Amino acid sequence: MTATLYEGNKKISVAEGSKAAPKSNEVRVKIAYTGICGTDLHIFHGVMDARVGNPHIMGHECSGVIDEIGSDVEDLSVGDKVVVRPLDPCGECYACKNGLSHICYNLNFMGVDTNGSMQSYWTVPSTTIHKIPEDMDLKNAALVEPVAVATHDVNRSGLKAGEKAVIIGGGPIGILVALVAKSFGADVVISEINDFRLGFAKDLGIDTVNPMEKDLVSFVNKWTDGVGADVCFEVSGSKPGALVMTEVVKTRGKVVLVGIYGQPAEVNLKQMFLREVELIGSRVYEAVDYDMAIDLVAKGDYPFEKVITKVAPLDELQEVFNMMDTDQQQMKVLIEC
Amino acid sequence: MTATLYEGNKKISVAEGSKAAPKSNEVRVKIAYTGICGTDLHIFHGVMDARVGNPHIMGHECSGVIDEIGSDVEDLSVGDKVVVRPLDPCGECYACKNGLSHICYNLNFMGVDTNGSMQSYWTVPSTTIHKIPEDMDLKNAALVEPVAVATHDVNRSGLKAGEKAVIIGGGPIGILVALVAKSFGADVVISEINDFRLGFAKDLGIDTVNPMEKDLVSFVNKWTDGVGADVCFEVSGSKPGALVMTEVVKTRGKVVLVGIYGQPAEVNLKQMFLREVELIGSRVYEAVDYDMAIDLVAKGDYPFEKVITKVAPLDELQEVFNMMDTDQQQMKVLIEC
Repeated sequence: MTATLYEGNKKISVAEGSKAAPKSNEVRVKIAYTGICGTDLHIFHGVMDARVGNPHIMGHECSGVIDEIGSDVEDLSVGDKVVVRPLDPCGECYACKNGLSHICYNLNFMGVDTNGSMQSYWTVPSTTIHKIPEDMDLKNAALVEPVAVATHDVNRSGLKAGEKAVIIGGGPIGILVALVAKSFGADVVISEINDFRLGFAKDLGIDTVNPMEKDLVSFVNKWTDGVGADVCFEVSGSKPGALVMTEVVKTRGKVVLVGIYGQPAEVNLKQMFLREVELIGSRVYEAVDYDMAIDLVAKGDYPFEKVITKVAPLDELQEVFNMMDTDQQQMKVLIEC
Repeated sequence: MTATLYEGNKKISVAEGSKAAPKSNEVRVKIAYTGICGTDLHIFHGVMDARVGNPHIMGHECSGVIDEIGSDVEDLSVGDKVVVRPLDPCGECYACKNGLSHICYNLNFMGVDTNGSMQSYWTVPSTTIHKIPEDMDLKNAALVEPVAVATHDVNRSGLKAGEKAVIIGGGPIGILVALVAKSFGADVVISEINDFRLGFAKDLGIDTVNPMEKDLVSFVNKWTDGVGADVCFEVSGSKPGALVMTEVVKTRGKVVLVGIYGQPAEVNLKQMFLREVELIGSRVYEAVDYDMAIDLVAKGDYPFEKVITKVAPLDELQEVFNMMDTDQQQMKVLIEC
């Protein structure tokens, strides 16, 4: 049993950890792989110390196999291949009582607010478990969490087959949103300024535009015969992204806010008025988004697994974070736990 | 036949005008009353000269009686009491072909883009005409246009009976939105900083809060037991309004953008993420909003007519605009045409 601990100030230590016995409504998962998320990098950089504290076990994008189950758990068995939907809502608030527990007012985001899956075994509430097909690769299964972010975003947008979507930002989530949107039958284009990411998207067969080279609004107007895109996904979390997102969509077009803005950002509200644009906040995922993500990744019709650019062992987590600080040519890095 | 002409640089002249014969698909309306809108004040101040040009006949909030009808016009008769929905869409663009002609890509907003109702007779397409009940007061009928702005905003919000709505801004449109929201069975509160407007709203039985005296977010949290309002209408068009609008609504709450922002404004996008808030652009009205507004004003269950604070004759339009520049104690001023 190995656990990795964030100790503050970009330091990761490797400890023996403890293999917690599941309570009656919990299961213990032998973790196979855990993906590194942008949020983990923020934690590593100390930006989230006030929320996270330390020592802290990171990790919320994981796959594994059930190792032990609590006495009250039904429908799950030791040996089941699973992924964890890392949301532990309060069950008492307005959101929880209205079918919106994923945006619980007091949400425990496991791996951030409490310890996560960067360890050999993780004991979690059975309600967070989704079984995956027996023949699903556990590496690919570690992508279910970020793919579920993308399915949630696309489900929130109401995107339909044959429609056109602009995705601002071509990092891992932007790429996954593009693939999910394609699976809905939409035409997509990613707007991105980084050459590595532009090339990466192109290699996956996704159309791209570099807004430093071509004016994005003019490009989209040409692409859509002057109508505007049906949907825009703002994934960059950047000021230019916030400013342009409302200008690339049609009358009654939808803009889904995927990127997270630490500070208020300027938005072209007049454009929202002129075209009755809707700007839609989107956060994590619901159970249905997870089911859809499992199905999409398991089917393999779209190259989700291609976003995995590196796999490293758990005891090298410090080196992996150090590497990610300097190497900008990574998409999704998995840790073998 | 009298017409008033905006001549540029805050100058209004009174001219004889011409009583245009209606074309086959048009009707001529003998104008009874025309309300002065904030847009008219912008025109008067020269802010919209590039769009409006001059000499120009303002006015788009009017009531009247049909004086003559074109040869192809059915279902309308000379003598009918009517209001004009002053939208002349192109009929060819994506919006027009998808049932959204009110946000036509090439919309002619009559009274702004072309001449309006600040004259004794106005000749308009018959498609812009809504008949009103025979016994409806023509002064009150001149309120149908701004009330239709409010019914459109409330319809866009999906507000339901028993829900709570915060209205940021207590000018004429804020007051009308509050009254329409009340007619839907909602509890409303207007946030406003101007003492005259606060008092005006209170006199109409509308609850108010002054955000200079009480923190608006804390106030709303208390009012809603920590949940947040169901809907917020941002009517102020102000920077503080844009910044706070997303913070007063619940999980999946809706914010309707009513105020017009000439420049991009800062929005708290993180709050939109945390609560999956939806920000909804809203512009003018559809035919159904007009029908609803006629019905509400005609029924008289809510004191819409109280927003009329002054009625003046057409040939005093210059004096009325001059007065409105200095007298901040007016809500809706009607011109008797």
